[in-house]
Amino acid sequence: MQVLVPFEATRPKTRLDPLLAADERAAFARAMLRDVLSALLETGHDPVVVATAPVDLGDDVLEGVPVTVDERPLSTAVNSRLGGTDPVGILVSDLGLVTPRAIGSLVAAGAEADVAVAPGRGGGTNGLVVSHPEFRVDFHGVSIRDHLNAAESVGADVRLVDSMRLATDVDEPSDLVEVLLHGEGEAAAWLRAAGFELAVGDGRVGIDRTV
Amino acid sequence: MQVLVPFEATRPKTRLDPLLAADERAAFARAMLRDVLSALLETGHDPVVVATAPVDLGDDVLEGVPVTVDERPLSTAVNSRLGGTDPVGILVSDLGLVTPRAIGSLVAAGAEADVAVAPGRGGGTNGLVVSHPEFRVDFHGVSIRDHLNAAESVGADVRLVDSMRLATDVDEPSDLVEVLLHGEGEAAAWLRAAGFELAVGDGRVGIDRTV
Repeated sequence: MQVLVPFEATRPKTRLDPLLAADERAAFARAMLRDVLSALLETGHDPVVVATAPVDLGDDVLEGVPVTVDERPLSTAVNSRLGGTDPVGILVSDLGLVTPRAIGSLVAAGAEADVAVAPGRGGGTNGLVVSHPEFRVDFHGVSIRDHLNAAESVGADVRLVDSMRLATDVDEPSDLVEVLLHGEGEAAAWLRAAGFELAVGDGRVGIDRTV
Repeated sequence: MQVLVPFEATRPKTRLDPLLAADERAAFARAMLRDVLSALLETGHDPVVVATAPVDLGDDVLEGVPVTVDERPLSTAVNSRLGGTDPVGILVSDLGLVTPRAIGSLVAAGAEADVAVAPGRGGGTNGLVVSHPEFRVDFHGVSIRDHLNAAESVGADVRLVDSMRLATDVDEPSDLVEVLLHGEGEAAAWLRAAGFELAVGDGRVGIDRTV
């Protein structure tokens, strides 16, 4: 299955500004993108990066992944690639906890319904598999609610995917805790190499930077 | 399977203090506990509430659920009930997004390994199924990491459960967004009746209280 992976290549991860400089945010965002693409390849799917600007994916196995530059808003860029007869997957690029197994549960849900949706924390949508030709995405606002309504309005049945790994898109400093705890790929390695570690205090765990 | 459900009955949900008065926190915590117990009954398991003080569960089907008062620290109270030959489940009581299906994935994982663990956001552990007689819990600090280490040290194999619904224990104001979006039980209904609704602004979705 073709899986679109939208990527903000111009100013990625601005909400991590309190912790990471601009070049670090770019490197970390790229590490997460590489984790997502690797997991897709490992599960036998065909990722296509839909980026706001050219992206250098590296010179390893990911070199062959196609990158399409599309400067239109995210939802427009994605919707222009829907409407065909084959199922299309969409997976956000900032999943620092992604595993092939988690992608497998999204794909399995997509095989059982016209639209499968993996919610992101805070009302977002982090993954979809769309088999209904009239369904369109809208990533603005409370997108998970909008996607459920959109599916209903075109008569598509929906399956929600219950996955912490897919729900955890990494936007804010507290999300880095999850990457350090549960990430298994380059993003977690990048954070550790940059000196981040868990800080154990009262309440939930935080992060420290020691380097 | 017997499933222990620890419940802080004395001063529940203190981190929701900015949004809820003490009596509201108690009512909301009880609604979440009732959701967890109902989902356990629906999946055919035998919940036992292990509470710091007596709890009135209501006069419906949940009336028959046993409540044991144990004033010892949480981990001690739980560990005194482990070590037998039958698998024992442990599920935290503040899962406002719980569904029978989510519990099913924890139980399925428990059937495949000596210890199944459902991580909570921020390093916590929200659910376990323990089949190894020497495994003990420790809910202090980064408990998910400690539980993985504890399993290794007694030679127990582990399976991690990837569930957003089980990962979302409700402790802080931002967690209420998830209950409003994805909760299907009494906790979500309680929040709505108390006047909470989603607030859509920049970035992630927040909450408003209108009543």
